Formats: sequence, C-alpha cells, structure tokens
Amino acid sequence: MSRWDPRATIAAKRDGRTLEPEEVERFVAGVASGEVSDAQAAAFLMAALLRGLDDDETLAMTRAMIASGDTVTLPDLGAPTVDKHSTGGVADGVTLLFAPMAAAVGLAVAKLSGRGLGHTGGTLDKLEAIPGLRTDLTPDELARQVAEVGCAVAAQTARLVPADGALYALRDLTATVPSIPLIAASVMSKKLAVRTDLILLDVKCGSGAFMRTEPEARELAQACRRLAAGDGRRCGVAVTDMSQPLGGAIGNALDVAEAVEVLAGRVGGRLRDLAIVFVADAIVALLAEEPETARRRATSVLDDGSALERFREMVAAQGGDPRVADDPWAVLPAAPVRTPIATRSAGALAEVAAANLGTIATGLGAGRLRKGDPIDPAVGIVLEIGIGDEVGEGDVIGTVHARGQDEADGAAAAVLDALTFRDPPVDAPPLVLDHLPAEPHARG
Amino acid sequence: MSRWDPRATIAAKRDGRTLEPEEVERFVAGVASGEVSDAQAAAFLMAALLRGLDDDETLAMTRAMIASGDTVTLPDLGAPTVDKHSTGGVADGVTLLFAPMAAAVGLAVAKLSGRGLGHTGGTLDKLEAIPGLRTDLTPDELARQVAEVGCAVAAQTARLVPADGALYALRDLTATVPSIPLIAASVMSKKLAVRTDLILLDVKCGSGAFMRTEPEARELAQACRRLAAGDGRRCGVAVTDMSQPLGGAIGNALDVAEAVEVLAGRVGGRLRDLAIVFVADAIVALLAEEPETARRRATSVLDDGSALERFREMVAAQGGDPRVADDPWAVLPAAPVRTPIATRSAGALAEVAAANLGTIATGLGAGRLRKGDPIDPAVGIVLEIGIGDEVGEGDVIGTVHARGQDEADGAAAAVLDALTFRDPPVDAPPLVLDHLPAEPHARG
Repeated sequence: MSRWDPRATIAAKRDGRTLEPEEVERFVAGVASGEVSDAQAAAFLMAALLRGLDDDETLAMTRAMIASGDTVTLPDLGAPTVDKHSTGGVADGVTLLFAPMAAAVGLAVAKLSGRGLGHTGGTLDKLEAIPGLRTDLTPDELARQVAEVGCAVAAQTARLVPADGALYALRDLTATVPSIPLIAASVMSKKLAVRTDLILLDVKCGSGAFMRTEPEARELAQACRRLAAGDGRRCGVAVTDMSQPLGGAIGNALDVAEAVEVLAGRVGGRLRDLAIVFVADAIVALLAEEPETARRRATSVLDDGSALERFREMVAAQGGDPRVADDPWAVLPAAPVRTPIATRSAGALAEVAAANLGTIATGLGAGRLRKGDPIDPAVGIVLEIGIGDEVGEGDVIGTVHARGQDEADGAAAAVLDALTFRDPPVDAPPLVLDHLPAEPHARG
Repeated sequence: MSRWDPRATIAAKRDGRTLEPEEVERFVAGVASGEVSDAQAAAFLMAALLRGLDDDETLAMTRAMIASGDTVTLPDLGAPTVDKHSTGGVADGVTLLFAPMAAAVGLAVAKLSGRGLGHTGGTLDKLEAIPGLRTDLTPDELARQVAEVGCAVAAQTARLVPADGALYALRDLTATVPSIPLIAASVMSKKLAVRTDLILLDVKCGSGAFMRTEPEARELAQACRRLAAGDGRRCGVAVTDMSQPLGGAIGNALDVAEAVEVLAGRVGGRLRDLAIVFVADAIVALLAEEPETARRRATSVLDDGSALERFREMVAAQGGDPRVADDPWAVLPAAPVRTPIATRSAGALAEVAAANLGTIATGLGAGRLRKGDPIDPAVGIVLEIGIGDEVGEGDVIGTVHARGQDEADGAAAAVLDALTFRDPPVDAPPLVLDHLPAEPHARG
C-alpha cells in the first residue's frame, strides 16, 4: 500500500523544502532504475534548478549518482595518485601535459576521461589523433600501465556513474543544464568515483566556457570543493581564464603537436603556464614541497625532457606511434588544405568569442555536435595571437586546416568575425582568476 | 537549420520571461503532436508553476489546448444555451438538478461531462446508475434531445481538448497540478470548446475540494472568468463552500435518489439552495430578469413539478427508466448491506474531513482511483447532519450502503473519524463565499 511515490519528493522541492539525504538518494536511485520516469526526473530537475539544492542535498545527489555504477579503486602503485579535470574550454590541452609531467615528478596519474561535445574538445579525441593509440584500456591494463609508466589516459566506461549520463542527457533536452549544484554533482560524481589521493579541478571562466562570468565560476569551484570535502576527499581548485583559447591549436592532431612542443620545452605561453600551476599544486599537496620548490620542479621536467619521455612511453604503452614525441607531423594526420588567416585591419586583439572558435573547428570536422558523431583528427584552427597582442593590417595571425578550400575560406572569415580588435594598448587578462589549493590533509 | 527548439521556450519560462502568445501556442501544439517530449513538457510545467503564467500566457495556452481537438457548436435550439461546471467536490449533484431546472425555465443545456476521479464523483457516473441510461450520445443525438427536451448530459469524447487529457495526466505524475493558471486553463479549455451562450462555474472551496482555502479558490475563480472574457465568452462564477459534503448522499444511485427528492420539491437544504443560485444566475444573464424574479422562477420549477418532468424526459430520451422520477428505489440498484452510523458522543458537528468521506465512498466502490476502474452504482454513504447540527451520544446520523458487513462497519467507523464534534453552539458555514455573476452583455 505504502509504495514509494516520487511525486512526494518532487512536490517537496517544488515547495522549496530542503530534502533529507535519504529522499535525494531514493529519487536518484529511482532515476537510475527507471522507477522514476523521465518526465518526473525533468520536473524534479527544474524544481531543483529554480529552488536550489543546498550542500547536503547536492552531496546526497552526487553520492547516489556514484552508487548508480562502478567505482574505481587503483591498486597500490607505490606513488600518490592524482586526477586533474577541466570543466571544458577551447584549446584546453592541459591534461596532455599534466599526465606525463606529474608522472615525471613521481606521481601516478590514472585519468579516466569522457568524449568532447559541442565547442569543447576532449582529451580522448586528441590522443586518438595519434595513429594506433587506444583509450579503451581494461582496469588491469590501466593499473599496469600506471605502475610502469606513471600515467595513463583512458575512456571512462558506461558503468562509471551511469546516472550522470542519463541525467545530463535529460538536462540537455529540458533546459535544466545551468544550475550550479546540478553541474557540480555531474562533474564531481565522475571524479569522486575514481578513488585517487587528490583531485585537481580547473573551472574555466569566460567566453569559451560554460561558466561565462567569474562569480558563477567561483560558485561552481566552491561547490565542487565542498562536495569533495563532504566525501572526505582532497581537492584543489583553480578558476582560470577562458576568455580566449588556452593554447594556439584547436583541433586534435594540432593539439597533440602543440602539446609535444610544450613538453619538449620549445614553446611557452598560457598552456605551459597552466600545466605548471596544476603540477606544482599536486607536488605541494602530495609530496609536501613548498610552492616555490614545487613550481621549479614542475618546470624542470619540461626543460630536462623527462615529461616528454613519459609522454612517449604513455603513447607507446597505449599502442600509439611513439615517434610522435620526436617529430609529430611525421606521424600525425595532416589536413589537405591550409589557409592563412590574415587580419582585415590593424589594432590590438581585445576580445575573442572563444566558444565560436570551438564551434568553427567543430564545423570543420574537429568536434562533434551529437554523441557518437565521427570526427576528423586532422582539421582545425591555429591562432597565433592572444588578447593584448598588436597586429598590422593583413598580418597572418593563424591558419585554418581543412578538408577543402571553400570550408577553409569560410572558417578563416568566421575566425576573424570572432575576434575584436581595438586601438592599443589592451591588457592581457590574468590566467588564474582564483586559486584554492587542496588543504594539507584530507578529512577523515 | 533553424528547426524550432522547445528548449528555448522552456528556458525563457525558467528564467521568468513572459512568453509571447505564439510561443505558448507553438509549445502546446508541440505537446499535442508529440514533437515536445513528456520530459520537456514536464520541465515547462514545473517552470510555469514556479514562475507563473500571466493572463495572456494562460489564454494562449487555453486556446492552444482547445485547438488540439474538436470544438462543439450547437445548432440553433430556439433558446439560449448554458453550461454549468463544478471544479469537483463531495456529494455535488448540482448538475443533476441544474440541467432539468434550466430546461424548465426555457433555457437549453447541452452538458458534456468527464468521469469522476479520486474523491469527487462524476455526473456521468451518477446518471448511469439509472438502468438503461446512456451518456455516449452522438453530436446529432445531443442536439436533437436538447431541442426536444431542453437538456442532455453526455460524455465528452476524447476529441474534445485532447491536449488537456495529456497535460493533466503528466501534471498528475510530476507534482505540477497545484498551479492556478494551469488549473484554470484545464477547466476552461473544456468549457470554451463548447460554444454556449453562458458558462456558469462553481469553484469549490474547503476540505472536500481541490482548492482548500478561500484566497486560492477566489484566485482560480477570477482566473477562469478572465479566460472566458479573453475568449469573448460570458461567464458567471461562484466560490462555494466544500468544507462539508454539499448533499447528504455520496454514491451514485444514492445521489440520483436525492436529486429526485429535491426535484420533486420534497427536500430542502444546501444542494437545493445552490441549484437555485445557479439557475437564477442563468435566468438573469440570459433571460434578462431581475435577480429576485429569477430566484422565484428557479424555485417555482421545483415546487410545481416542471423540473422533475424535464428530468423524467431527459432520462427517457437517453434510454433510462423514467420511473426513477416517481419511485427511485423501484428502479435504482440497492446495496445488500445498510449499516447505521451512530455517534460516539454528544456535541455539535464542527468540522468535516470532506475529502476523506469521498475517499471512504470510493473505497466502498462508489468511485475510481484510476481512470477506467469499474464502479458499483449501489454503494455509498448518506450523512444526515451538517456543520452546526447538534447530536446526542448514539444518535444515528447516517447510513453506509455496502457490499458486505465488514466493509460497512469499517466505513461507518471511518466516517466518524472524519467528523469532529465540539461543544455547541457551532455556526454553519455560509454556502456561497463569493459570487461574480456574468456581466450583462458579452464582449465582442
């Protein structure tokens, strides 16, 4: 007679009541089991978006999402383990650098990653531009590779937090994505389901990110950190600038080639700087170094070739052609057409519609609009200037890599439309907007 | 490329924007066509519930719901047409009285009705307790009967406002029922779809109604009236008391028998009083009489037998046994067990959990919990006292009509649990809480 009725939970949130953790857990379990219909879940999500979820409710939701699938516990790897995650941006190839750099300083990185969607690229897609490289590692293969090489980047399986996949698809269809607690639960459920010693989170902020403003990015960063603390996990968070692409390359082979240049110590810039920030944070938190020492150590593995060596080993261990570390374009697929992007007038780069650049690259074939769409690893955009840089009229500021000339010309024009030039001087934006390193010791 | 995306409408309402009528219409049409998924409709309904819908939005929604199916235009019947609808209460048999009374004063009543659900009874179920009576009249049969007899009560078809059926089922499942604009759109779409000269609406208020408080009942009454005005239709509304059952009978055959007693002028009380209020309102609005004259005329058709005669003709025209008008229990099905309800202590009836009485009757078999459940026309409850009446200990205050003795005893105890007695004196509540008769002339 007293069968559980999901309507009671929906009605309670609708009326602004704070739910007990058990109610939230029961509801999410019902979503995962199919006992709660999509319509009921959608009504709940809209009520949660409009009425809010407090920390305890969000934690209960996150835990219930984790409980919907498998968790990953790594065997003793003889080194502290760290996971690093970005909320998604344009030309955000930090993971390609972070994994081998962290391995080079003596940490273990077993990174499980999802596919890219929309205007943001995915780490798996980038790595798979390397001929032969596989990301479908079994749990045993993953553990063995991390023990031997120090790092691995593999695809998360459908059994990792399946409730997140179901809820996210529903949120996307029902205009219930923009809720900080729901986003935090989605992001952190997948991080908390993998039992590493440290989670580092890069919350992107600006025109190329889901969080467009600093206050909402900070709010998300803090919500994620509180979820980690609530689950007894150590977590460092940085809010970083995504008002322009982080690196110069927006594509998959292009991203890998750029990563190799950074790993080889041949290229500086924002991508390198941010990788150093996160590796240094990991060293401080897990190896108990002082920040300055940690920073020097993170930098040194780029300058002495040891990070590049780990990258080469990681690629080889995952079946990829290791020569990519020596001469990327001897191995990576290249697009048939390359068209320069030349400015229409002089000025200083003042604003970048960064998401548009991601969308243009997706249009060229570098990304996917829908889950499961095929992608072309060769195509994309390289942009060689950043906000504050001054250019003359007709200067070449980048290149479009495309399958055909018409596509290339269209993309080059669209890239220029996404850039706003003003009279100089224009200040470059700071890279790190907020920085909340992990606390020295985990709770519990 | 620019395919319509229902998410834009959901997001706009989510963010508190007032929607254009075209947006609302497009969305509701999408719900009706299946283009909008249940999950999307549910998210919209929750956003509409929490953010509100203004008059224009609610009117657009109502019109789009009407446009999802057929509308009913009656042929010229030589008399003004009137529809009367109650938002649903316990022992609310006013329609059984109103239709023949209005016919007797020279008006035409072609009433399309839905089935009862939950604790409130349905007019169709009551009428079908009369052996032989059919309510599945074709449009032609309906028009012919109204022309000949002056009144007919028939089942609305699935083609009348199908979007309401779909939306209501979804609202019931997703805890999005309690929204005044959504309720008003649901109620009025079905009334506006039948093109009568006047709509009279009885908004029930109290423990046996969907609207538990006077402010929310008034708000619904006014919202419904504004919808009618927006659609260029005349509409009178009364907010009436449902803090106790309106009549004495809660059942189907029991309701019919009570209606016959009232129509024959043999029984007074709240049920008779309210029927007179609505018939007088119809006379004022459609026959241009003064209120006092109208009231006298409405009363006289009960006292002179002319309303009972119309009832007999209506029953006969719909295939029922007309002897029900002379000797109800010679025709109506009777329950095998009748058990008196005797009070446990003395006092004055102060409070009635009226919905519980409806639920007890449903439990006996008089109503249905789910659409399509079978009902037993014979069973139910008769309660012979009202709020303010004084009783002694052990007084018989009513009767349970049941299929078995155990059920009857359980129901009798449950009825007593639903009644609160206090030391006298207790005032009887007013019957009509708010009265907004139709304006003298229709707009447009």
